[in-house]
Amino acid sequence: MTSEQAEIGVVGLGTMGANLALNIAEKGFVTAGYNRTHEKAFELAEEARGFGGTIVPAKTLEEFVAALKAPRVIVLMVPAGTIVDDQIAALRPLLSDGDIVVDAGNADFNDTVRRTRELEGSGLHFVGIGVSGGELGARHGPSIMAGGPAEIYPRLQPILEAISAKYEGSPCVAHLGTDGAGHFVKTIHNGIEYADMQMIAEIYGIMRDGLGLEAGAMADIFAEWNKGGLSSYLVEITAVNLAEKDPETGQPLVDLITDEAGQKGTGRWAVIEAQKLGAGATTLEAAVSARGVSSRRGERARAAEAYAGLAATSGQFSGDKAGIAELEQALETAKIIAYAQGFAVMDAASKEFGWNLPLGEIARIWRAGCIIRSRFLDDIASVTDSGETVNLLVAPDFVSRVSAGEGALRKVVAKAALSGLPVPALSAALAYFDDYRRARGTTNLTQAQRDLFGAHTFHRLDREGTFHHRWPAV
Amino acid sequence: MTSEQAEIGVVGLGTMGANLALNIAEKGFVTAGYNRTHEKAFELAEEARGFGGTIVPAKTLEEFVAALKAPRVIVLMVPAGTIVDDQIAALRPLLSDGDIVVDAGNADFNDTVRRTRELEGSGLHFVGIGVSGGELGARHGPSIMAGGPAEIYPRLQPILEAISAKYEGSPCVAHLGTDGAGHFVKTIHNGIEYADMQMIAEIYGIMRDGLGLEAGAMADIFAEWNKGGLSSYLVEITAVNLAEKDPETGQPLVDLITDEAGQKGTGRWAVIEAQKLGAGATTLEAAVSARGVSSRRGERARAAEAYAGLAATSGQFSGDKAGIAELEQALETAKIIAYAQGFAVMDAASKEFGWNLPLGEIARIWRAGCIIRSRFLDDIASVTDSGETVNLLVAPDFVSRVSAGEGALRKVVAKAALSGLPVPALSAALAYFDDYRRARGTTNLTQAQRDLFGAHTFHRLDREGTFHHRWPAV
Repeated sequence: MTSEQAEIGVVGLGTMGANLALNIAEKGFVTAGYNRTHEKAFELAEEARGFGGTIVPAKTLEEFVAALKAPRVIVLMVPAGTIVDDQIAALRPLLSDGDIVVDAGNADFNDTVRRTRELEGSGLHFVGIGVSGGELGARHGPSIMAGGPAEIYPRLQPILEAISAKYEGSPCVAHLGTDGAGHFVKTIHNGIEYADMQMIAEIYGIMRDGLGLEAGAMADIFAEWNKGGLSSYLVEITAVNLAEKDPETGQPLVDLITDEAGQKGTGRWAVIEAQKLGAGATTLEAAVSARGVSSRRGERARAAEAYAGLAATSGQFSGDKAGIAELEQALETAKIIAYAQGFAVMDAASKEFGWNLPLGEIARIWRAGCIIRSRFLDDIASVTDSGETVNLLVAPDFVSRVSAGEGALRKVVAKAALSGLPVPALSAALAYFDDYRRARGTTNLTQAQRDLFGAHTFHRLDREGTFHHRWPAV
Repeated sequence: MTSEQAEIGVVGLGTMGANLALNIAEKGFVTAGYNRTHEKAFELAEEARGFGGTIVPAKTLEEFVAALKAPRVIVLMVPAGTIVDDQIAALRPLLSDGDIVVDAGNADFNDTVRRTRELEGSGLHFVGIGVSGGELGARHGPSIMAGGPAEIYPRLQPILEAISAKYEGSPCVAHLGTDGAGHFVKTIHNGIEYADMQMIAEIYGIMRDGLGLEAGAMADIFAEWNKGGLSSYLVEITAVNLAEKDPETGQPLVDLITDEAGQKGTGRWAVIEAQKLGAGATTLEAAVSARGVSSRRGERARAAEAYAGLAATSGQFSGDKAGIAELEQALETAKIIAYAQGFAVMDAASKEFGWNLPLGEIARIWRAGCIIRSRFLDDIASVTDSGETVNLLVAPDFVSRVSAGEGALRKVVAKAALSGLPVPALSAALAYFDDYRRARGTTNLTQAQRDLFGAHTFHRLDREGTFHHRWPAV
């Protein structure tokens, strides 16, 4: 083993780490690899040799560090949480001033902020980056959201640009802000992903239970939609999922899969951070909460029995061309609203944490490599680049699109309500839109109530100042 | 000043603390009082003398502690956050083994759990209690949710029962569980309060903007509803709020109040804790998020302008007797669903934190004194007492009520969607109900997608085990 030859090292060679290491090696960077069970590193080295890449396997952390050129760049790909802290603690005595530790796992951005603070003055640089795209993305080109010190980014940039996904030749990676900015943006990405998937599932539910369509027929519809404004990875794979037959029974596989969705926590983080920022993202919340409901399958069966007597108002939806087009337009419109909420959360975070997040750049690096990649993000990129940060919903291009589609969204939400078909995310999107575009809301009543029972005071439309009224005793 | 005469002491004599001290003194307990600006304590002592009560004012914390009988009971009524920690630190050297420090402020229950841990082994006992009812409640009878060690509660019980609200003679106070249980339940109480207020505001919005009713006419409707199933403090004060005229202009005061609602954080905590527990309470979330939207008044005005061209589909709602009854039934049904969500969050927390929360008891102590007090809580109390913990929605009594009212809720949500009137909480309630009562949901598609892009695996309906499918390449 030759010392100090590797340009970058990866610690943690599980599915994501192994694929990332292979990706880096394939792009021509000599990569050191370390895993607790070190055989994995030697297997990867073998695999890399197959395509002419070099992975330097290490048996110990000491060997691993010795294999790296100074200043060292070490990428951690270990499970989020205390394992990251433990790994940093194990590495610290082996590293030198100027070395860079990159956490590329799905970290809670609050941890990234804390770790940055903890390493301040230690001589080490800490960089949190969000990596999206699952294992295939890690291997062949993920979308990469980088945080950390701006002055360190140029050291990482060539490698990250080489391994990232490309959208029409442009690398899907950018430095977005200091400390936790990258992991924060990744968290919101995942929240939007939850919303996107939930809205697709709601439309699927309408087709299945409201129109009685078979999986194959729905596959065709989603495949068709993937050619239009909804063109996206998620709509594309929905068509694939629906078309797939169970090899053993020959039935549509989706019909045999249990309706209990898991979650890995990042969607929940997105919802929690949105709430902390006072920028509640109700479609994201609805999506995360719906997974929670889905996981209570036993309870649902019991409730279904308790309410078996409810008369369903069927026949609301129509499966003709216009009816299917209405569903398409509703989904597209709700999607714009959900993304607007996600971007509004990032805007609020940017102000709160002083990141100055480049929202247009974020849309651009999401155009390829990540789960929510779509043509639509290209439109967002151009809108959010035009200067002043505003809610997507008031960007002229989106005003036209939402104006054209809101009627369909309204009808679908209304019909679903009457049919007994749950559309938590679609209805949250519509309610947010109608609330957001209303100059005169209804919390004047809320303020009157709060002033009555808690002397919380209120403002008036007709004069300046803060007022408390002596309400009649109740 | 006589030493060691007071049975209880209150630190922090702001609005809530002062009223609580007066309440305690009025019930015949000699009460020591301390405030940073100590004049306040002397004023209160004077006020207490007026009704024959004794408040022993202290100029210093040392004097305050010296005035208390051992083992001492000290109630902190200071702003939540680090001030509580500072106050405990300042008291510690002055206290003795067996003394009890009670935090009666609006604490984050996580802080209460931490403080309990920090004081373990110190000889002091720490008790977190939630107090609801605003300043009037604090003065004349709040609803009190006590946490802390069960063995300490009897020491506090006589005082808490004396000062608490009474529902048909029964005191609205109970020990609910260890450490943070009291503050947690208070947090969920506030989350439910947000949902209740938001749903009332949504119905008000339909009457105002969908039916064109004047404030006075709406006041009459809410006053009428307060005689029926919706009978509650919040509906009662809504009628009062709507009936009130601005003394100067003679216009309905509510029409002059700005539609920007504030929040003090507990609603947000409720939403965050619900998410952490995987028991997303979507109506509570919708309510908290709607306050956020309302606070962005400038943005809303801009959006209203951008979408000024939207054709409203008016005429959906009817102001005749049946139409108003439909609104009433919708509100009542959505309220049941919102409360079911809140109780489900408490049930989840009870399991997570080992509190064994007495849900029936909680409903009972909310029947008077607190902001959400209502006849309806008496119904919940009887349902949740009947043994096994289940979601309220499947308790037989509520199955009948929801079955009778869900049609109205559906129609109102559908009409609001078509009318462009936002009903975020009402629609969240309906969607949750329809999702919860569906034996076969739609996250089978979600699981298929997750397995395709992330190898997250799935379960099958037709056989045991965990499966990963080799989906066609996308």
